[in-house]
Amino acid sequence: MTDIDVPSGIAARTETPAPGDPRLARLSLNQKTVDRWSLQEAVDACVQHGVPAIGVWREPVAAVGLATAVRMVGDSGLRVSSLCRGGFFTAADPAEQDRAHDENRRALDEAAALGAACLVLVPGGLPAADRDLRGARGRVGGCGRTARATRLDTGVRLAIEPMHPIFAADRGVVSTLAQALDIAEPLPSEAVGVAVDTFHVWWEPGVEEQIARAAGRIASYQVCEWITPLPPDALLSRGMMGDGHIDFGHLSRCVADAGYRGDVEVEIFNADVWAADGHAVLDTLARRYVELVEPHV
Amino acid sequence: MTDIDVPSGIAARTETPAPGDPRLARLSLNQKTVDRWSLQEAVDACVQHGVPAIGVWREPVAAVGLATAVRMVGDSGLRVSSLCRGGFFTAADPAEQDRAHDENRRALDEAAALGAACLVLVPGGLPAADRDLRGARGRVGGCGRTARATRLDTGVRLAIEPMHPIFAADRGVVSTLAQALDIAEPLPSEAVGVAVDTFHVWWEPGVEEQIARAAGRIASYQVCEWITPLPPDALLSRGMMGDGHIDFGHLSRCVADAGYRGDVEVEIFNADVWAADGHAVLDTLARRYVELVEPHV
Repeated sequence: MTDIDVPSGIAARTETPAPGDPRLARLSLNQKTVDRWSLQEAVDACVQHGVPAIGVWREPVAAVGLATAVRMVGDSGLRVSSLCRGGFFTAADPAEQDRAHDENRRALDEAAALGAACLVLVPGGLPAADRDLRGARGRVGGCGRTARATRLDTGVRLAIEPMHPIFAADRGVVSTLAQALDIAEPLPSEAVGVAVDTFHVWWEPGVEEQIARAAGRIASYQVCEWITPLPPDALLSRGMMGDGHIDFGHLSRCVADAGYRGDVEVEIFNADVWAADGHAVLDTLARRYVELVEPHV
Repeated sequence: MTDIDVPSGIAARTETPAPGDPRLARLSLNQKTVDRWSLQEAVDACVQHGVPAIGVWREPVAAVGLATAVRMVGDSGLRVSSLCRGGFFTAADPAEQDRAHDENRRALDEAAALGAACLVLVPGGLPAADRDLRGARGRVGGCGRTARATRLDTGVRLAIEPMHPIFAADRGVVSTLAQALDIAEPLPSEAVGVAVDTFHVWWEPGVEEQIARAAGRIASYQVCEWITPLPPDALLSRGMMGDGHIDFGHLSRCVADAGYRGDVEVEIFNADVWAADGHAVLDTLARRYVELVEPHV
């Protein structure tokens, strides 16, 4: 469980950084962390708290319409560190693959309009009643087709996201950063990178070597925590940095050593975090970020 | 969820194999699958259902006393495919390591008395408030000390069990079969093998190559299922074969190709399975085993 209202020892030692604090210069709020808020509410809160970037999701963008979303974000002066999400390459049926590709093209257009640094790609899970994991993994190579649909002039990179093996069946068959890099490396690095999310990769044997291997390919760095006991809904099992088992200093130094200089997104899917007051969540995550992540990244 | 009382399509097509059916010759019931039963109840049920082997746990053995447990098992004529469990090598404190080692020596003695084919080793999780995963993984090499405590004349092998990354923080820092083999290979194969559990390794990239690499080292083959949505308690998240996403034919053929000829244990930690009637569970697992596993192993 996370301590939004009752700060833990960690939070108690650190004052909430004020807007303009240079330590916040690379912090980004992924919208999913404040899932109840509309895009406008999330944008306004970032401005209010001095968080200079936001990772947005397609659904809340669609809720207001792309043109309005572009204007909201543009008026705010926030950077858009990512658009979540495209991908879903694992369908065995060619017609379904085509539908996913069309959806990915639309997502790329939206990312370009929003000025997003990257489009995060969720690989997709096993098709219904299909137990051929190797086959599904092979089809993620289909992201090469999406890569060919990127326009380098828009500056939007694809970010293949390896996902924790807890999601291998139903969400992301790419289970390690090593696999994601195997897929990305044959493709141009200007078009295709990887998303390094601490929740997904912290357990990976040799993750340090894989992050080093990802130099020039890290399109997104996302932080959130592995907590125990794992919350009951696997999809909402992520924690606030500092409440669990991940060594954020260690992984952040690896990412920095690999040359990553982009925004650092906090993306937390957690029912308790979602139920808490969004402003309290932003205060806590800014404190945890400046204490645990920022000195190392 | 699993279908104990209402057989699924799979179970409906297969008759429950009768005691003496040669397809049951290598089936073993891990006691944890019928968690509410005492050792005597589990032993009696195996005999009644024609399951010729059992994987026993230390706690129910201790509940009746080792001598009684040895007599129960001996009288039944069942093979003991494994004793669960030893291990827990990750303590940073030398005194705690010594306590774990003493416990492992006792477990080895019990395994020898019971005639168990192997002692399953759970690696252990991160020590409290310790985020050094690499350090904890390094300490699992301490199983070499346990290996030196084995007596080859007893026939008990150690079986290092790689555990699904869902357990990396709190139970088993060895997350892949590749890591388990890295630890086992410097040690004599008569003393130290690995446990291949489908639930733990089905997602592992290159698991086929790792199972082939494990030839001569597979001390235990355990089957249970990865189901979605994942049940709320991560520790009880395993399913009945056929209810989820694992290709048991594929993995079982890999294990057979690696030369494994031992018992095949069904080990299911699941609240619904535990709540069901044990005899119904045994009927279902025997059907699923002869349909999904036995033809391939």
